[in-house]
Amino acid sequence: MTLADLAARLGCRLDGDGSIEVTRVASLDEAGPGDLSFLANRKYAARLPETRASAVIVGDDQAGAPCATLRTEHPYLAFAEAVGLLSPAPAVPSGVSPLAFVDPSAELGADVSIGPFVSVAAGTRIGARTVIAPHVVIGPAATIGTDCLIHAHVSIREGVAIGSRVVIQDAAVVGSDGFGFAQRPDGTHQKIPQVGRVVIEDDVEIGAQSAIDRPAVGETRIGQGTKIDNLVQVAHGVRVGRNVLLAAQVGIAGSTVLEDSVIMAGQSGATGHVHLGRGVVVGAKSAVTKDVPDAAHVAGIPAGDVTEWREMVALSRRLPELRRMVSELEARLAALESRLT
Amino acid sequence: MTLADLAARLGCRLDGDGSIEVTRVASLDEAGPGDLSFLANRKYAARLPETRASAVIVGDDQAGAPCATLRTEHPYLAFAEAVGLLSPAPAVPSGVSPLAFVDPSAELGADVSIGPFVSVAAGTRIGARTVIAPHVVIGPAATIGTDCLIHAHVSIREGVAIGSRVVIQDAAVVGSDGFGFAQRPDGTHQKIPQVGRVVIEDDVEIGAQSAIDRPAVGETRIGQGTKIDNLVQVAHGVRVGRNVLLAAQVGIAGSTVLEDSVIMAGQSGATGHVHLGRGVVVGAKSAVTKDVPDAAHVAGIPAGDVTEWREMVALSRRLPELRRMVSELEARLAALESRLT
Amino acid sequence: MTLADLAARLGCRLDGDGSIEVTRVASLDEAGPGDLSFLANRKYAARLPETRASAVIVGDDQAGAPCATLRTEHPYLAFAEAVGLLSPAPAVPSGVSPLAFVDPSAELGADVSIGPFVSVAAGTRIGARTVIAPHVVIGPAATIGTDCLIHAHVSIREGVAIGSRVVIQDAAVVGSDGFGFAQRPDGTHQKIPQVGRVVIEDDVEIGAQSAIDRPAVGETRIGQGTKIDNLVQVAHGVRVGRNVLLAAQVGIAGSTVLEDSVIMAGQSGATGHVHLGRGVVVGAKSAVTKDVPDAAHVAGIPAGDVTEWREMVALSRRLPELRRMVSELEARLAALESRLT
Repeated sequence: MTLADLAARLGCRLDGDGSIEVTRVASLDEAGPGDLSFLANRKYAARLPETRASAVIVGDDQAGAPCATLRTEHPYLAFAEAVGLLSPAPAVPSGVSPLAFVDPSAELGADVSIGPFVSVAAGTRIGARTVIAPHVVIGPAATIGTDCLIHAHVSIREGVAIGSRVVIQDAAVVGSDGFGFAQRPDGTHQKIPQVGRVVIEDDVEIGAQSAIDRPAVGETRIGQGTKIDNLVQVAHGVRVGRNVLLAAQVGIAGSTVLEDSVIMAGQSGATGHVHLGRGVVVGAKSAVTKDVPDAAHVAGIPAGDVTEWREMVALSRRLPELRRMVSELEARLAALESRLT
Repeated sequence: MTLADLAARLGCRLDGDGSIEVTRVASLDEAGPGDLSFLANRKYAARLPETRASAVIVGDDQAGAPCATLRTEHPYLAFAEAVGLLSPAPAVPSGVSPLAFVDPSAELGADVSIGPFVSVAAGTRIGARTVIAPHVVIGPAATIGTDCLIHAHVSIREGVAIGSRVVIQDAAVVGSDGFGFAQRPDGTHQKIPQVGRVVIEDDVEIGAQSAIDRPAVGETRIGQGTKIDNLVQVAHGVRVGRNVLLAAQVGIAGSTVLEDSVIMAGQSGATGHVHLGRGVVVGAKSAVTKDVPDAAHVAGIPAGDVTEWREMVALSRRLPELRRMVSELEARLAALESRLT
Repeated sequence: MTLADLAARLGCRLDGDGSIEVTRVASLDEAGPGDLSFLANRKYAARLPETRASAVIVGDDQAGAPCATLRTEHPYLAFAEAVGLLSPAPAVPSGVSPLAFVDPSAELGADVSIGPFVSVAAGTRIGARTVIAPHVVIGPAATIGTDCLIHAHVSIREGVAIGSRVVIQDAAVVGSDGFGFAQRPDGTHQKIPQVGRVVIEDDVEIGAQSAIDRPAVGETRIGQGTKIDNLVQVAHGVRVGRNVLLAAQVGIAGSTVLEDSVIMAGQSGATGHVHLGRGVVVGAKSAVTKDVPDAAHVAGIPAGDVTEWREMVALSRRLPELRRMVSELEARLAALESRLT
């Protein structure tokens, strides 16, 4: 693809020779002739002058490129689009593998692809152009929309409703039983049957090994456009809003609500029955234990205002100094007291 | 089912018209006519007067219900039983799927259900009425008791012994190799073959994506009635007692012992070779690094007494104030000192 | 095997009757006649005099054994070798199961074992003597070296390159899409196609349920001899050096670099785009947020020098005392001030 073409498709301003052809996207370090690179994180700006790429996507006012540039207000977004334009979509076998098990009552849309050893139970519906990789298990009466990509070893349990354009990475589980037990007087626990609904709205992505639990009553819901990384736990009855980002190994306990555009960084968690307002940001490894108002940025265990948390961390590091100051004051005060006795 | 019937079965005191029929369990918010709801968490008491449910399970002395009530000392337990009574058990295909692989030497009890693409290796034994969902892999010489429910994509490795009435959620792994390596003088690591036993006692539940490792020698054991949530790590040689609760993303390192009725909250962990006494409670995200006596409630990293931890957290938050107090004292003392020079 | 044989093979000094035969390795507590035990962790030294083992592997100068001893500078390493010598390697069915799906274009080395319901896509290469357990999915154009052991339910995604003598525990995923999204001005997120490489070098072990993500550009690489425990997240573009140990539930965010011989303890994490020098040790539950120099030992959230962290933790515990000291100083100072008015 020529740079002129690419600039037009990406909505970038081209600075250089539009007839240059690029065939691949690569990092600044790795790129060579024929490669398109990008600079989206200023941390790597020092690498820009050394790149051997034929062209680089950069911010509007970025200096220092030794090659043609595609300039835009949103270089990371343009890079995302460029990867899609330059990477051939992987070939997907069409049709239903003769090695798959598809219950006769299942309804399959046009051009559905179903791989070997997939198991599709009774009463399911799978929308047009959806790709089901090998070894996916789809439980009774589950529904999946159009243009989804369900990777290998995913479990979609009974009755789960999945929207369109949803991507689920390998071995994720949607609709497993919530962790619901009522303690008997003798200390043993009675299982509460988890028979509620799970709804995954359109344009959601769920990472490898993540688990979205089913509740006893009501529903667990993941809102449109939300992206979930690997090894994330979403417990029963949680409601996650739209365009939320959950990084790897996040855990959300039962019945908690995340409003739209919440971001939870890696290994953070939220306890049960709390409410995270719209646009809340939770720092890595933090633990939310109570309601958080809209747009708040919190961190710590338990999580509080991130600025106060940073100050607390800094002062904790200086506790030895504070301790010495107090000891010195004590000595000076004692000296004064003894002089005045 | 009529409220009179239900009250009798649940052992509740009925306050209202016993001929009313209910068909479903729902939350206070969602319930409508024909629904049974419940109030077990006081946090939601304000929602009781607004519910449209036909009847509500409540505590003995709970006021404010706008409908019939089923009263009991243990409303959450009655709710658990009610869900089971009102939810039809999912239909399970009987017999062995023709698409399963079952080694001829495997012994299957009466009415075992084995789904498509299940792989059952040589020398295994599966007890009566146990349900094996699609895509479960059962390794050589593993045994599973009666009335178990093993969900899709579970791995039960060679020689693992599982009791009766055990439930394992999707994609859990029981009997994977423990993380055992001996460092060679050159810094590389030699694998220690993990050839010990794994025993899962009766009435255990194991969550989705959880891993229970096998040790090199001796055994890893999960005691009767213990419930394990999703994405939990139980390392090699761990002994977990009876009626223990492990919330999501808990990790327990090698050879650690949890006595009966321990509770570990979400994302907490315990280091290796430590002992948690009977009834110990570990707070969310805490890290147990040494032995904990019976009934202690601990929190923090590293974990200490929970009351002391709360005080420590509160005082940490007030470090800026303490710092200012010390600076002010220093100034006042210096003023005094200069006056007295 | 006689103790004389064993001593010769393990390179140990035998103290006792070389004609004694041992058939099994067991812990000090469990061992009986005919068993070989070991003492590698001094915490258990008190159990040595009570063992009923026929022989024990101990350190060069360890006293107190009531039986024959095999003495060595590296008892844990000798134990590792002894387990291998005394445990029969599990029998592996040879050849390709007739229930597996192997694309005709796949190249299989000599004596490859492929279990039931394995799915091997087009263009793959699997080296000699490699064992593929049931239900493994190998994507298009992936390569696996010789003498590997890939346990059940593992996903090896398209184009992944795996070296020789690699062990992957059940349900691990290698090559899932990295968590890469570019935010659009309207707050929704555009997926960045993750089309980079994943390379797993020789002698690596990957634990159950762990996920190794694929990047958009460049590669994710796990260095030779590195051992990864269960439920670990390695994000896109991470480079892990040689002989690294990652304990369970560790998470490493995108583009971070771990040099050789790094150790990350359980539930610790590292943020993206940071560099951990050679031999760095990260304490359990710690969060690395910036570059760490070679050989540093860090702990805490955020992680700092481990000695300073321990002091900080100890002083945090004594905050109530410090607070009282300050209040007392204030009272004494006020008294002094009022006397001097």
